[in-house]
Amino acid sequence: MSILVVGSVAFDTVETPFGRAERVLGGSASFFAVAASFFVPVNLVGVVGTDFGEKELAAFAGRKIDLEGLERTEGLTFLWEGKYSHDLNSRDTIRTDLNVFEFFKPRIPPAYRSSDVVFLGNIDPVLQRDVLEQVNKPRIVACDTMNFWISRKADELRKTLAKVDVLLVNDTEARELSGEWNIVKAARAIRAMGPHTLVIKKGEHGVLMFSDEGSFAAPAFPLEEVFDPTGAGDTFAGGFLGYLAGAVGPPDQELRRAIIMGSTLASFCVEAFSLDRLLTLTRTEIDARFRQFLELTRFSE
Amino acid sequence: MSILVVGSVAFDTVETPFGRAERVLGGSASFFAVAASFFVPVNLVGVVGTDFGEKELAAFAGRKIDLEGLERTEGLTFLWEGKYSHDLNSRDTIRTDLNVFEFFKPRIPPAYRSSDVVFLGNIDPVLQRDVLEQVNKPRIVACDTMNFWISRKADELRKTLAKVDVLLVNDTEARELSGEWNIVKAARAIRAMGPHTLVIKKGEHGVLMFSDEGSFAAPAFPLEEVFDPTGAGDTFAGGFLGYLAGAVGPPDQELRRAIIMGSTLASFCVEAFSLDRLLTLTRTEIDARFRQFLELTRFSE
Repeated sequence: MSILVVGSVAFDTVETPFGRAERVLGGSASFFAVAASFFVPVNLVGVVGTDFGEKELAAFAGRKIDLEGLERTEGLTFLWEGKYSHDLNSRDTIRTDLNVFEFFKPRIPPAYRSSDVVFLGNIDPVLQRDVLEQVNKPRIVACDTMNFWISRKADELRKTLAKVDVLLVNDTEARELSGEWNIVKAARAIRAMGPHTLVIKKGEHGVLMFSDEGSFAAPAFPLEEVFDPTGAGDTFAGGFLGYLAGAVGPPDQELRRAIIMGSTLASFCVEAFSLDRLLTLTRTEIDARFRQFLELTRFSE
Repeated sequence: MSILVVGSVAFDTVETPFGRAERVLGGSASFFAVAASFFVPVNLVGVVGTDFGEKELAAFAGRKIDLEGLERTEGLTFLWEGKYSHDLNSRDTIRTDLNVFEFFKPRIPPAYRSSDVVFLGNIDPVLQRDVLEQVNKPRIVACDTMNFWISRKADELRKTLAKVDVLLVNDTEARELSGEWNIVKAARAIRAMGPHTLVIKKGEHGVLMFSDEGSFAAPAFPLEEVFDPTGAGDTFAGGFLGYLAGAVGPPDQELRRAIIMGSTLASFCVEAFSLDRLLTLTRTEIDARFRQFLELTRFSE
């Protein structure tokens, strides 16, 4: 069993009320890959520039993350710079230098083509479909997107969604994509576009999942210290899909566990800058917090 | 077993994107009393004017709601008029005529003084303490408040909170009261002021409870049609405390069930204007939705 992720590998410069991190490892595929690698081998497809060195690669070393698909080309690596508000609930993008990512055209190495699960990170929906044409029928095709594609490439996005099993978006994106304010109506409209499973991420308010097995609501873990929210959504996706890729139980139960596993990984991600906390994380810590989620939500008739 | 509620009984004029209701029954004590009466007898203390007639009283008739404490004085009943935004997520107050409620001084009838549970609705914290001086040691003292009292009568509110077991507020109020943005830190600070149980209402994002038994997170029920959110918070409080007043099981389990029961009642409240949906509600419907909450949140290790 293995999972393929296609997305950004980047440098982030992040300022939060608690400090500043300069040119640290970021990008959706980075967070996703490290989170998913706790559960199954990960095949990573992305692009970096010549400024991406051994120090950054060290984050992936010693993990079940294959880097054959991580292209290195002439130029600079994607750089994002952002500053969070005092309450961490909003952020301003100071700078987005796409650099080599601007011309990213995902090439899937032959060894990756039979990955069981494919995660299409937040890239042009045309490229997302292009990835699907390069792989053999995966068991699960999952996909992320954002407002930019929803408004600028609506038709292309629709074509991609028709080929997707699981869509992960936040509540604002779900509303924009469906044109429905009510989240239940939005979910029905989006599921009619293709994805039989829709995961709506609500940040500190948790997650809602709509699937053939019914609806599932999970809270975010109430943390006393949220240090840096960057990458939480991608880490959630990595934990969710990584767990699901390796799951062998009844789908209904495994889907719910996968949501909690994603929430668990995301709750660790925000405890430090970049991937710092994920890189020290152990399976024992993951399982302990998963059980804390059970305690946080349990009640009986 | 019985529960005492002290709060407003009012006329509401409400406009939502779905319609308009003129001078319909509202007020915190009205919503609370009807919700709580599904579980235990309710003793209601409030004040209305001479314009409050048989039509309005009919809402309480045939229920376990005692109205000896509902004072009627010369003048007009409290009138609130509000208009909700297109998405129902914010509302403008068009008009607040306190009328007879401006001089409300709660008098607790002798028959009410040994109520097991006391709910102090959102009134001046000085009056809230005044109520506590008129009752015999209740098993649970619960209390609501709002930004107005938090900023204008901080010292008086602190004195009241020192006598309270359970505080129910929304997330904005919790942050303002504690001076902490982080909700876990806010909860710790507020619990140090007196209430051993803190219930933080987050509207469509559900409820967080912090108590000696740990933390509990519950989602709001994902509804396809939200018609009018007015009274949802008071209905939640009525379902929560009404259930708790009659509960005989282990506190940890009963507190959690009570939160779900409050959420269940609130989910019905918003389906129609005023108390309309609550007045047609049956215990069978309540229990069915409680079980839907179990289905919505269940997962296993």
